[in-house]
Amino acid sequence: MSEQPTRPYRTELSPISFLRRSASVFPDRTAVVHGERRYTYRQLEDRVDRLVRALHAAGLEPGDRVAFLSPNTPPMLEAHYGVPAAGGVLVAVNTRLNSEEVGYILGHSGARFLFVDAELEPVTEPLDLSGLTVVRIDDAGAAGDPYEDLLEAAGARPPGEPLPEAWLDDEEATISINYTSGTTGRPKGVMYTHRGCYLNALGEVITTSMTNDCVYLWTLPMFHCNGWCFTWAVTAVAGRHVCLRKVDPARIWELLEGEGVTHFNGAPTVHIGVVNDPAAHRLDQAVTVTVAGAPPSPTLLGQLGELNFKAVHVYGLTETYGPYTVCDWHDGWDSLPADERARLLSRQGQANVIADPVRVVTEDMADVPRDGATLGEVAMRGNDVMKGYYDQPDATDEAFRGGWFHSGDIGVMHPDGAIELRDRKKDIIISGGENISTIEVEQAVARHPAVLECAVVAVPDEKWGERPKAFVSLKPGASATAEEIVAFCREHLAGFKCPAAVEFTELPKTSTGKVQKFVLRDKEWSGRDRRIN
Amino acid sequence: MSEQPTRPYRTELSPISFLRRSASVFPDRTAVVHGERRYTYRQLEDRVDRLVRALHAAGLEPGDRVAFLSPNTPPMLEAHYGVPAAGGVLVAVNTRLNSEEVGYILGHSGARFLFVDAELEPVTEPLDLSGLTVVRIDDAGAAGDPYEDLLEAAGARPPGEPLPEAWLDDEEATISINYTSGTTGRPKGVMYTHRGCYLNALGEVITTSMTNDCVYLWTLPMFHCNGWCFTWAVTAVAGRHVCLRKVDPARIWELLEGEGVTHFNGAPTVHIGVVNDPAAHRLDQAVTVTVAGAPPSPTLLGQLGELNFKAVHVYGLTETYGPYTVCDWHDGWDSLPADERARLLSRQGQANVIADPVRVVTEDMADVPRDGATLGEVAMRGNDVMKGYYDQPDATDEAFRGGWFHSGDIGVMHPDGAIELRDRKKDIIISGGENISTIEVEQAVARHPAVLECAVVAVPDEKWGERPKAFVSLKPGASATAEEIVAFCREHLAGFKCPAAVEFTELPKTSTGKVQKFVLRDKEWSGRDRRIN
Repeated sequence: MSEQPTRPYRTELSPISFLRRSASVFPDRTAVVHGERRYTYRQLEDRVDRLVRALHAAGLEPGDRVAFLSPNTPPMLEAHYGVPAAGGVLVAVNTRLNSEEVGYILGHSGARFLFVDAELEPVTEPLDLSGLTVVRIDDAGAAGDPYEDLLEAAGARPPGEPLPEAWLDDEEATISINYTSGTTGRPKGVMYTHRGCYLNALGEVITTSMTNDCVYLWTLPMFHCNGWCFTWAVTAVAGRHVCLRKVDPARIWELLEGEGVTHFNGAPTVHIGVVNDPAAHRLDQAVTVTVAGAPPSPTLLGQLGELNFKAVHVYGLTETYGPYTVCDWHDGWDSLPADERARLLSRQGQANVIADPVRVVTEDMADVPRDGATLGEVAMRGNDVMKGYYDQPDATDEAFRGGWFHSGDIGVMHPDGAIELRDRKKDIIISGGENISTIEVEQAVARHPAVLECAVVAVPDEKWGERPKAFVSLKPGASATAEEIVAFCREHLAGFKCPAAVEFTELPKTSTGKVQKFVLRDKEWSGRDRRIN
Repeated sequence: MSEQPTRPYRTELSPISFLRRSASVFPDRTAVVHGERRYTYRQLEDRVDRLVRALHAAGLEPGDRVAFLSPNTPPMLEAHYGVPAAGGVLVAVNTRLNSEEVGYILGHSGARFLFVDAELEPVTEPLDLSGLTVVRIDDAGAAGDPYEDLLEAAGARPPGEPLPEAWLDDEEATISINYTSGTTGRPKGVMYTHRGCYLNALGEVITTSMTNDCVYLWTLPMFHCNGWCFTWAVTAVAGRHVCLRKVDPARIWELLEGEGVTHFNGAPTVHIGVVNDPAAHRLDQAVTVTVAGAPPSPTLLGQLGELNFKAVHVYGLTETYGPYTVCDWHDGWDSLPADERARLLSRQGQANVIADPVRVVTEDMADVPRDGATLGEVAMRGNDVMKGYYDQPDATDEAFRGGWFHSGDIGVMHPDGAIELRDRKKDIIISGGENISTIEVEQAVARHPAVLECAVVAVPDEKWGERPKAFVSLKPGASATAEEIVAFCREHLAGFKCPAAVEFTELPKTSTGKVQKFVLRDKEWSGRDRRIN
């Protein structure tokens, strides 16, 4: 926090500045909608400043981690400004995790604060939270809600006081840590910088054609890559955040027209739910829907188009601040047959406007030919690649070997420069846009007393893209049903990570005894041209 | 050009990357239109790469200044990518200057290259260009045009060769120098950085709501603040550049519908010409027109609205990469009476999305009250403030005193945070968006053998905003007519800088003999509430 030499032509980039500007220029414009509650930009800024003061009053030191476990509510949005403005680092925790998983993240990140939505309090109840300052959020927006009482007690920022974020003297400072499951079983903490989030937010504005009249519906979890940085992007255009506690297609249809929504994002499973809802009908105003986590199917694309949704297909990872590539719509595609259009749009495309060109590389970092056939690993680098894994220098070095981030995704490079994913190097299942480590699931299954050994692979699923399937061999003389195995897993794993199916079988092995998971995957994915969905 | 430590999360920002991306993603999309000529993004990139190779072949060394004297043609646009990609610094020279002035800029910048449009060659003919490599641009786009022959001879970038801009290891490197007239008479060279242009380009995209379907008409000179960085912004959204050699309202009307123009920019005089052209009629598609250099009058705003032009009022200086503030349209303004709307929109507004908050300050850098009445100087700092004046450290220090850029513009701060200009601290006339130094005009007038002394002040002008008026006292016994004085000035000054009027009079002076220019200004501006137009 040293004094910087005065260079009038240099300001450290931080997405907090977007809130300051929108609150100054459009103080009376509605910034946040949450059911009956509405906050103007002036009110949003005031709430953020109060959160800063509350954190400071509670003893937050520069660099302290502040965990939020919350659905998409105003407090969760406020955290994206208040925590970094206070000098803290935001750890937005996946709300689908169980107690053990949340406990691991709180411990690994060394969080000193935990803000927890009342609905999720049961998840944290079994944990030893003695080292943390815990604040419950009732999401009531009124006195009596501990979060609201905290803001009230903290008081407003006195006029003329310097902005709290004036501490920022290096735009590469960490703004947030987002935990994501890897192959090692335990989630890793992906560090984002102020600079990266600022640039990625501006990139999202261009990628999804957001303008001043943007009304953004929060179908995507804010905990997921900080909502792909849309927590900041929507504010950059002085748009409107429409909060949503859970993805409920009927409620989404109410809000689409009731609030004049122009944009929302999600994995295909979100969009499938929306287009198949009984309330679905063609919209007067086109709505831009960004799809990631898995390519949209021709069926989904057709349905979206009929209802006047404009689909934007993007691809990225937690390690790339969310979307890194976009399959931009091209002049002339409108007139193609629907299947051809869908085939082109199902590709992951090219780097977005603030990203460096994406590569598909061999083991020794040579580019694969642009033939749409040769497999290689997708590699990225640049301002929207993570700073590293928190407190895991070895994992960081491994991910950054050769000076590039290794995605673990296997794909091809088409002659036009678009990449297309075909397989996954790492043993990861992507279900509804969230990572599941197969090893983590295997370890849970293996803890069942009747299980001798097990292997978990991804299997295709129409709704979620992929789901885990467990292949299990039992101990001699022992017995268990599939239902018992799944129920056992639920005690140790978040529900979405538990096997969707259990098959009792001898596991295929190499002569040296190594389980051949590819044999199991081949069987489950036979007849398909790719091994991911 | 040293090796940087490998940080996979860091890429130096440069607007050259926008061209690389658009050429990769949209190679077949039309990037440039110039009369019958059209270049796709693939072709534009190829031409830029050839320009780089030509500059390297001709001996360009890193940091060399490359001057372009050209209207808004494809080569002028290509220079904005090719010169910095080659490691050079672009000096885009005002095409309205005379030989002496152009000679000064070539000399002061130490340019090693001069690219000159054939129409402007007479301006450079009297100059000693022996130290420069000179290339004529016939703007023919075909063999026989020296510029085209140069590109042809340079050859295409070999496949697989690293991008030429890979030299960039510091985003704060100078990308261009833009000369602007100041109070000292001689123009000063304003240095822009790669980082500043990158960020300002993204800011312009948001300020003017540019999306992927943008068709931008080049009414604004590309030499003026590098076209307010729209040279790069249009490419960032993969939009279309429609070139225009000169502002010709009839031609503009042809292009508006013929090319489906969505955006164009300029000083009010440009827009006044457009709305009053015989071809003017209401457009089916709204066109965003950005106005700067002087506030749009209620009359102009009314005419723009009737014709379906959406006016965006911005304000800035060469020292701020062009626009710094924008008077954003507010919800509710549509329903206000036309005069009230115009009054609100005529204010200069607030900092744009990538700019730091603008201030209005006293001599000792205290903020004036937000009362819409107390005068102060407009001050800025941040990523869209110049790096400094080229080779003028004293002038730079003076401009940056107190750690802020001092604009020399006098204004007020309204209660809502919008600034409004009222006067000018420096003796500068802004005519059609271009600076004219009163001292420079005075010096030219004073060189006339009959002139004893003279004072030049700005006077309001309906078309140009302001024009210079000279007050002259003659030597005893000498005589001269106004016409003779103006004709004499034309020998030494660009036409737009010559007095629009000459009045022979005794000059008002203080008791110590200092000319009281404010007395002359007061007389010319009486009955107005501000002293600028």
